[in-house]
Amino acid sequence: MPLGQRTAGDKSESRYCGVETDFNEDMPRLLDFNFSAGFDFLLTPLMNPTYRPSLVATGSEAAVLPFAGSDLVLSPAQWSSHVVGKISSWIDLDSEDEVLRQDSETVLRQEIAWASHLSLQACLLPSPRGTSCGNYARCVNQILQGLNNMQLWLRVPLEKSDDDAMDGNSDQAIGGYTDTWQWWNSFRLLCEHHSQLSIALDVISLPSGNSLGRWFGEPVRAAIIHTNAFLTNARGYPCLSKRHQKLIAGFFNHSIQIVVSGNEVHNTSMGTLECSNHTNENSDDTSRHPLRSYLDYVGYLYQRMDPLPEQERFELGYRDFLQSPLQPLMDNLEAQTYETFEKDTVKYSQYQRAVCKALMDRVPDEKASSITTVLMVVGAGRGPLVRASLQAAEETGRKLKVYAVEKNPNAVVTLHSLVKLEGWENVVTIVSCDMRSWNAPEKADILVSELLGSFGDNELSPECLDGAQRFLKEDGISIPSSYTSYIQPVTASKLYNDVKSHKDLLHFETAYVVKLHSVAKLSPSQPVFTFTHPDHSTKKSNQRYTKLRFEIPRDTGSAMVHGFAGYFDATLYKDVHLGIEPSTATPNMFSWFAIFFPLRTPVCLQPGSPLEVHFWRCCGSTKVWYEWCVTSPYPSPIHNCNGRSYWVGL
Amino acid sequence: MPLGQRTAGDKSESRYCGVETDFNEDMPRLLDFNFSAGFDFLLTPLMNPTYRPSLVATGSEAAVLPFAGSDLVLSPAQWSSHVVGKISSWIDLDSEDEVLRQDSETVLRQEIAWASHLSLQACLLPSPRGTSCGNYARCVNQILQGLNNMQLWLRVPLEKSDDDAMDGNSDQAIGGYTDTWQWWNSFRLLCEHHSQLSIALDVISLPSGNSLGRWFGEPVRAAIIHTNAFLTNARGYPCLSKRHQKLIAGFFNHSIQIVVSGNEVHNTSMGTLECSNHTNENSDDTSRHPLRSYLDYVGYLYQRMDPLPEQERFELGYRDFLQSPLQPLMDNLEAQTYETFEKDTVKYSQYQRAVCKALMDRVPDEKASSITTVLMVVGAGRGPLVRASLQAAEETGRKLKVYAVEKNPNAVVTLHSLVKLEGWENVVTIVSCDMRSWNAPEKADILVSELLGSFGDNELSPECLDGAQRFLKEDGISIPSSYTSYIQPVTASKLYNDVKSHKDLLHFETAYVVKLHSVAKLSPSQPVFTFTHPDHSTKKSNQRYTKLRFEIPRDTGSAMVHGFAGYFDATLYKDVHLGIEPSTATPNMFSWFAIFFPLRTPVCLQPGSPLEVHFWRCCGSTKVWYEWCVTSPYPSPIHNCNGRSYWVGL
Repeated sequence: MPLGQRTAGDKSESRYCGVETDFNEDMPRLLDFNFSAGFDFLLTPLMNPTYRPSLVATGSEAAVLPFAGSDLVLSPAQWSSHVVGKISSWIDLDSEDEVLRQDSETVLRQEIAWASHLSLQACLLPSPRGTSCGNYARCVNQILQGLNNMQLWLRVPLEKSDDDAMDGNSDQAIGGYTDTWQWWNSFRLLCEHHSQLSIALDVISLPSGNSLGRWFGEPVRAAIIHTNAFLTNARGYPCLSKRHQKLIAGFFNHSIQIVVSGNEVHNTSMGTLECSNHTNENSDDTSRHPLRSYLDYVGYLYQRMDPLPEQERFELGYRDFLQSPLQPLMDNLEAQTYETFEKDTVKYSQYQRAVCKALMDRVPDEKASSITTVLMVVGAGRGPLVRASLQAAEETGRKLKVYAVEKNPNAVVTLHSLVKLEGWENVVTIVSCDMRSWNAPEKADILVSELLGSFGDNELSPECLDGAQRFLKEDGISIPSSYTSYIQPVTASKLYNDVKSHKDLLHFETAYVVKLHSVAKLSPSQPVFTFTHPDHSTKKSNQRYTKLRFEIPRDTGSAMVHGFAGYFDATLYKDVHLGIEPSTATPNMFSWFAIFFPLRTPVCLQPGSPLEVHFWRCCGSTKVWYEWCVTSPYPSPIHNCNGRSYWVGL
Repeated sequence: MPLGQRTAGDKSESRYCGVETDFNEDMPRLLDFNFSAGFDFLLTPLMNPTYRPSLVATGSEAAVLPFAGSDLVLSPAQWSSHVVGKISSWIDLDSEDEVLRQDSETVLRQEIAWASHLSLQACLLPSPRGTSCGNYARCVNQILQGLNNMQLWLRVPLEKSDDDAMDGNSDQAIGGYTDTWQWWNSFRLLCEHHSQLSIALDVISLPSGNSLGRWFGEPVRAAIIHTNAFLTNARGYPCLSKRHQKLIAGFFNHSIQIVVSGNEVHNTSMGTLECSNHTNENSDDTSRHPLRSYLDYVGYLYQRMDPLPEQERFELGYRDFLQSPLQPLMDNLEAQTYETFEKDTVKYSQYQRAVCKALMDRVPDEKASSITTVLMVVGAGRGPLVRASLQAAEETGRKLKVYAVEKNPNAVVTLHSLVKLEGWENVVTIVSCDMRSWNAPEKADILVSELLGSFGDNELSPECLDGAQRFLKEDGISIPSSYTSYIQPVTASKLYNDVKSHKDLLHFETAYVVKLHSVAKLSPSQPVFTFTHPDHSTKKSNQRYTKLRFEIPRDTGSAMVHGFAGYFDATLYKDVHLGIEPSTATPNMFSWFAIFFPLRTPVCLQPGSPLEVHFWRCCGSTKVWYEWCVTSPYPSPIHNCNGRSYWVGL
């Protein structure tokens, strides 16, 4: 039964908890026993571990393979829902011993074929024995090509590195040799990031936080916790260290299932469960399961998790889902899109604050009743910035004349009704026109726009505002007054695989809007391009080129860069800003997800070697586009040359 | 005019010699002057080197660009045949100075556009200023996408590394920092190996032989030799050191054009040309060109080259041309194919020697007249091995009974006529049957076959001989008695680009038969798979797995591995062998070119870091295939998983 409920509608896989068992021919009893203790699934060997194909006399090839139980003993539905097949752990496909190697391949194929026959959802592959796992990976890769929906979980030990152990300094760099992430990385590169190859982390000991963080960008499906990792609380019951608790919370948040493994090392059968602070109401002392108290503790941790904030819950369905960025200049937005964005009250209150400050700077208190400020909203949409501006005028007691310029004729219809409905006819003039071609009847004191994309300039705010700048007074104010894009390298195997699934170059050279979740941020973000408005320089250009150098913390170990997460931060006016750059993000704003720039070939970073990245913003006569590449540790191709794959239309 | 003739029909580009000049507005005179001295083309700036776009007043944008001469001054044909455009060498697209960077990009685009307008065959791009050439590469990459047929030659200095210079030990490893191959490599990786991006080597000083060798696998089109690289011979004329001569011979052999550059540093106008050992019959002292004697020397070196051996001349058209390997088991060969292979007399005389030795071992002299040896030719084709065997019998005075087994019914027709024509009816029995299914009426003493492909077992000799082994006597002999495949890592940018041009995975996972020429062999070849016949072991399998580790000589510097060259060596009988493995290749045999296994992503090797490679031979019920991958310095995908792209049908 699930570990419990965190919040209404919690459908995360991580509410199920499994248990690792030895080989047992009486599968129904094994399942019953663990089920009644509250475990949801078994991680159990499918085949007798003493079996070796090479020891079977060649004459007896017709003999039945020594599997734990058939699909008559348990129903196919039981097998499929409650058993993860544990592939024989003695296999070693990279052994020097050819007989062992061939036995291993034979058994691996037999067990996977059997698991497929039973429609198991997953099998656990034994850990590779280092990075030199070529033959193991070749065999698994062959199997993956023809596999049904089954996942293969590669067991990977999570360990402190030897370097750490030797000098007892846990902040020290991870030595390449014992960084088990490398084992995983070799294996998955050989298997070409196959989407059915994932990870079961075997939590042996805890490396540094940066080192752990990498895994949240990788396809970890399960975490195996050993009973000897548990401490003992004052009442004699198992509990986990703060660091372990934090890690487990991370697993829960990333839909990673916990599997309890090992023997009972806390003798709790003497005590009474009722004393424990993590009792389970269904407890039943009569046929006590030796691992019951560990499961109870995991359930307690699960139920203790903070509920998801409303915004996060709303965005659950968007997590790690690739969306094409809007092209609001080329395309006209739909009513529903306007409506969604207009709900972002935080954004509009920031605009209102910025307009207030600008109005007070333009018009001193003593002239508030005599001077009328001309404010133009360029890209007025259905009017939210018109409203914010009028509210700012009211708040500051300034007189305002508003032009609402909008190129989308459908939005203009709505604008007209709004003005009528609110009785703004005397202060608001609606202009149905592209701001780049409008002949304004007078010049503006303040130009207000919200043309920013997730990457700041990617919805062509610079080009639009260049066009609008003609009708801004020499000393006029643009809100926003500047904006800057940011990037940071990320591990994002889910996103990479989703891009790869299209099997073309185009998708690898496209930027995506995405709610980042299963992503490891490897280094703080850095600024890329900045635009300032108004810009009165003569030889101005909206082309940009930036070269960035990221250093990844040494205690991270090696890590895979699948691409770059992009953000923006905008200065609306003076100290009023708005943005999604993680370290300064405006709280509770939902108008923008991050942007993701993929890399055609992920770049593996070794500890201490910097990542050098180039980004270009290029402008043609009909379109604007980005190009990007990596030059260190080794050069990548330049992505999206001439905007061949991805561009924003002017 | 060309440097001369080496052999009849020599069409190599390298018979043309160019000269590098300064900017000169009088193009017709410049061309005349250099032409009359014997140079074939000019490497000359197209634009006045003092021009800077940023210095031109913005009002005068309509001004004419300061090009050396228009298409009215020289005809388009003259421009195209005799001028290589030298892009302004002051440009620096990776400068910190933004004005210089933008001027550079503007001028680069203007000059290339002008060169395209003139239909020049090539332009010379200034050398990048190190490996950090991201913006330069981005701009060139953009230009390459829309370019006509023009080649862009990236100038790359060929220099001894600093490391060499510092300790004066020229055998020492090249330091990464001054290895200019890295400059090229960064640039071309950023430009995705674009086929119109090639190299002009600027020969400044000579690095070690291994370091030089790398370039012959890269797309070098021209080599610029400076007058100050020349020594002075006893008569005061320019000449080159032995090492330079060897390098220039290498250039000639790889169709690389020489360009002479610099001022005259040998004052030869005093001497008489007739004394020189490399006179040119067209010499004309009246308007002597200062670089004439350098050109004469280059011409002398060209004419002094050894003529190509006949076999090489025959194979010229096959150089670096990818061919699909034969599938003689699935497909029936055509008469023409048989005829071509039968002309390989060296091969058949090796077979004859092997059969002789086998016959003498089977039948002692004293029993020569009483014992009849049963010899079966399996895969007899049109009969060349039948003839070789009969000749061996005659040579050794042994009595022979021959079965000629052939599955191709068309070849069997020819076999019948041959037997009739030669009067072999009493000794030769023709069997029209697949050797794998033939029920032989008696057992053979000797089994002779020629089922080998370029990679030994790749035409399924093991599977065929397994089938034929049934009718070989317990102590019978197989000719060949064993064969081994070999591979070595190579730089082969031409082959890589040809594979890439198909734009699919299939071609990157296919092995090709190819006459290797523009290839740098980076390390000696190593054995991969060995098959021995007959093989009486019980659990035999034709699956194979080998892991190899290649160390590249430290003085090579870094190098790109585009794939692996494959070969075979076969032991026919005892000390009689046959093969194409370079260090032991049978001379003057032309039946087999090498095989080439490409890598989907070329692997860049740094000095001292080994290359770890895995090769598998996999067998299914209907096909045999290879899989291959690299695991060090970093893992590649496993190529050709399950034989999805390339396989040999059973």
